[in-house]
Amino acid sequence: MEIIKGGITSPKGFKAAGDHIGLKKVKKDLSIIYSEKDAIYTGIFTTNIVKAASVLWNMERYKDKNAIRAVVINSGNANACTGQKGIEDNRLMAVTTAKQFNLDESNVLVASTGVIGALLPIEKIVEGINKVAPMVAASSENSLNAATGILTTDTYVKQIAVEFEVDGKKAVIAAMGKGSGMIHPNMATMLSFITTDVNISQEMLDLAVKDDIEDTYNMISVDGDTSTNDMVIALANGMAENKLIDTVNEDYNNFKEALHVVNQYISKQIINDGEGVTKVIEVHVHGAKDKTDARLLGKSVITSNLVKTAFFGKDANWGRILCAMGYSGAKFDPNKVSLIYKSKGGSIQLLEKGLPIKFDEEKATIILEEREIKVDINLEEGDGYAIALGCDLSYEYVKINGEYRT
Amino acid sequence: MEIIKGGITSPKGFKAAGDHIGLKKVKKDLSIIYSEKDAIYTGIFTTNIVKAASVLWNMERYKDKNAIRAVVINSGNANACTGQKGIEDNRLMAVTTAKQFNLDESNVLVASTGVIGALLPIEKIVEGINKVAPMVAASSENSLNAATGILTTDTYVKQIAVEFEVDGKKAVIAAMGKGSGMIHPNMATMLSFITTDVNISQEMLDLAVKDDIEDTYNMISVDGDTSTNDMVIALANGMAENKLIDTVNEDYNNFKEALHVVNQYISKQIINDGEGVTKVIEVHVHGAKDKTDARLLGKSVITSNLVKTAFFGKDANWGRILCAMGYSGAKFDPNKVSLIYKSKGGSIQLLEKGLPIKFDEEKATIILEEREIKVDINLEEGDGYAIALGCDLSYEYVKINGEYRT
Repeated sequence: MEIIKGGITSPKGFKAAGDHIGLKKVKKDLSIIYSEKDAIYTGIFTTNIVKAASVLWNMERYKDKNAIRAVVINSGNANACTGQKGIEDNRLMAVTTAKQFNLDESNVLVASTGVIGALLPIEKIVEGINKVAPMVAASSENSLNAATGILTTDTYVKQIAVEFEVDGKKAVIAAMGKGSGMIHPNMATMLSFITTDVNISQEMLDLAVKDDIEDTYNMISVDGDTSTNDMVIALANGMAENKLIDTVNEDYNNFKEALHVVNQYISKQIINDGEGVTKVIEVHVHGAKDKTDARLLGKSVITSNLVKTAFFGKDANWGRILCAMGYSGAKFDPNKVSLIYKSKGGSIQLLEKGLPIKFDEEKATIILEEREIKVDINLEEGDGYAIALGCDLSYEYVKINGEYRT
Repeated sequence: MEIIKGGITSPKGFKAAGDHIGLKKVKKDLSIIYSEKDAIYTGIFTTNIVKAASVLWNMERYKDKNAIRAVVINSGNANACTGQKGIEDNRLMAVTTAKQFNLDESNVLVASTGVIGALLPIEKIVEGINKVAPMVAASSENSLNAATGILTTDTYVKQIAVEFEVDGKKAVIAAMGKGSGMIHPNMATMLSFITTDVNISQEMLDLAVKDDIEDTYNMISVDGDTSTNDMVIALANGMAENKLIDTVNEDYNNFKEALHVVNQYISKQIINDGEGVTKVIEVHVHGAKDKTDARLLGKSVITSNLVKTAFFGKDANWGRILCAMGYSGAKFDPNKVSLIYKSKGGSIQLLEKGLPIKFDEEKATIILEEREIKVDINLEEGDGYAIALGCDLSYEYVKINGEYRT
């Protein structure tokens, strides 16, 4: 397995394009992914009751097991809370894209991201699709443009490609993703599009994706808000021509490993580029009663505003971490908890089996000066282990979100 | 029923004092409440697994149904996550206070608030108790000092007294409270001390307090963090000499009504004085499936960072409210939701039965310029109704909590 240069167009048969069509002032705001052959598809969707039109559309495609050939994605407007008109506009996006590629609309997935509660400027979007679709054919090197077109407040492009071996053949898996607000563990927390040319059954693709998101996208949090639009879409078109993966075997494991690298990378980049982020906080929970408790504890810590602001202030106010663990819903004995902060600046123990340890504040400050900080928690309750990934809460986050629509 | 001038010393037989003893730089940091006669007592405590020493102590007193004569409260240090030494320090606070008033230590409640995870400077506190206790006898007009001594990042004192009639006699109920971070609906979310001279049974006091906090302290949120130290303490010493309230009757209802005024006032002041608050947001949820769902929906809206920053930015980005409702756990049909913003600046409808309404952005800005904003949500699912009280998320919140220990 090897990380290679490239993005969603690196797997065989996948093409893409992205351009500016006028939803945003100057930035690219519409992207299309295209597969030369039918791709099977797994989708994981937001758990929010209020679901965007695109989420509802894609859920139908998943239910009907439609073969997927194209995905059209706009940024700048979420087409959520837009009623029947929103549903119709979304369908028109699929229909327009389908026409451009001589497909049936049921072969097209749709995604939207941006402001909630505003109707799409649908004429502009139809024009835009007709403009961008021809760009897809022109090049198979457009992954960067496509990955740019899906961004909102993100400050950089998130894409990755990984080459791996199955059945003696080379296969590729790649992804592009976007954050960077409304990011929270309760699935799904952003947009991520995964392409792969591996030949795999629907059942095994579902299994791999559903399993892996629990340790990647579902363990990150920027602000605790689960959006109306979030989804992870995985497309597999089989063009690597390996023997079909239809059971858990070595090929499956190789695929799963490559998938994990891709998902972990996109998750981490979403946090690293979270709104106003100055610190990336990696919480390792060891010795929880079980995996479920470990996840609860990690998520609770990275979601606490008080923990987040303390890291922003480079303040070793570790009591807030224990406090956040205490209301996580996980059961543990506070008198057995140990706590360590680590970074490139060093390592410092703050709590041992429930007892505060006097620490050198200067040393703590040096550790907390770093951008990437690791928090090691040990509970001595069992062998539950999980990693949660979060960030600080800064003035900039407040600024970005106080002025989002202006 | 009438709101009168005064505070926790207004009910018959209650005295208090508060002074600076050196835990904080210059501000008052130790308070004592004293009752001339034995008071029955109800305590509601934090649901956080990590409970401060004072919480554990008071829970024991409640379980043992000890008669209460005094409450000692320090600010500046929470005495939480301090292990066995913290338990011993807490006991010494009770013992020292008891000695001063010739009581048994089991007649004394303790509360602490401030930084988590630092040992109390216990010698300073013992000295301080010995200094402040004699001040209690000197005056019954010390409620203001006591209410000052319990504050942390609060910017003003929160106290109220209400006179009401029971059994043809005048009785008084009063309270003092403090915020202003780690405030969240999951009970208990701050410190509130309620005194009353009403003659009431333990059972009826428990019932009244437990019932009322669900609509007051449990429906407010500053930052979504449930602290390790929070509690509502209600003391009733019976000195109003009314016929014992031992059932739900007119007297009970009069008491309950006065209790509600007191709790509602303290709750609202805690939000109004929340860390960095520039907006107070009152969310009225109408037509939810039931009361439980109405509460879930209201709490979810006031807890969302994205909703909070939008109000800070005076941005009518109402889609975030629907989004927060969507992940609240309550069930509803997004296509039936209506939404209105109101303030002294006017009223504006943003959503009707799931459809966005085009609104005048200038008019919205005028409404959102006001400090107090009301959000009316109607779901048409049933007759569940609740009010949740929250605030915005400002630069100042981040500043206060990034630099809390400095």
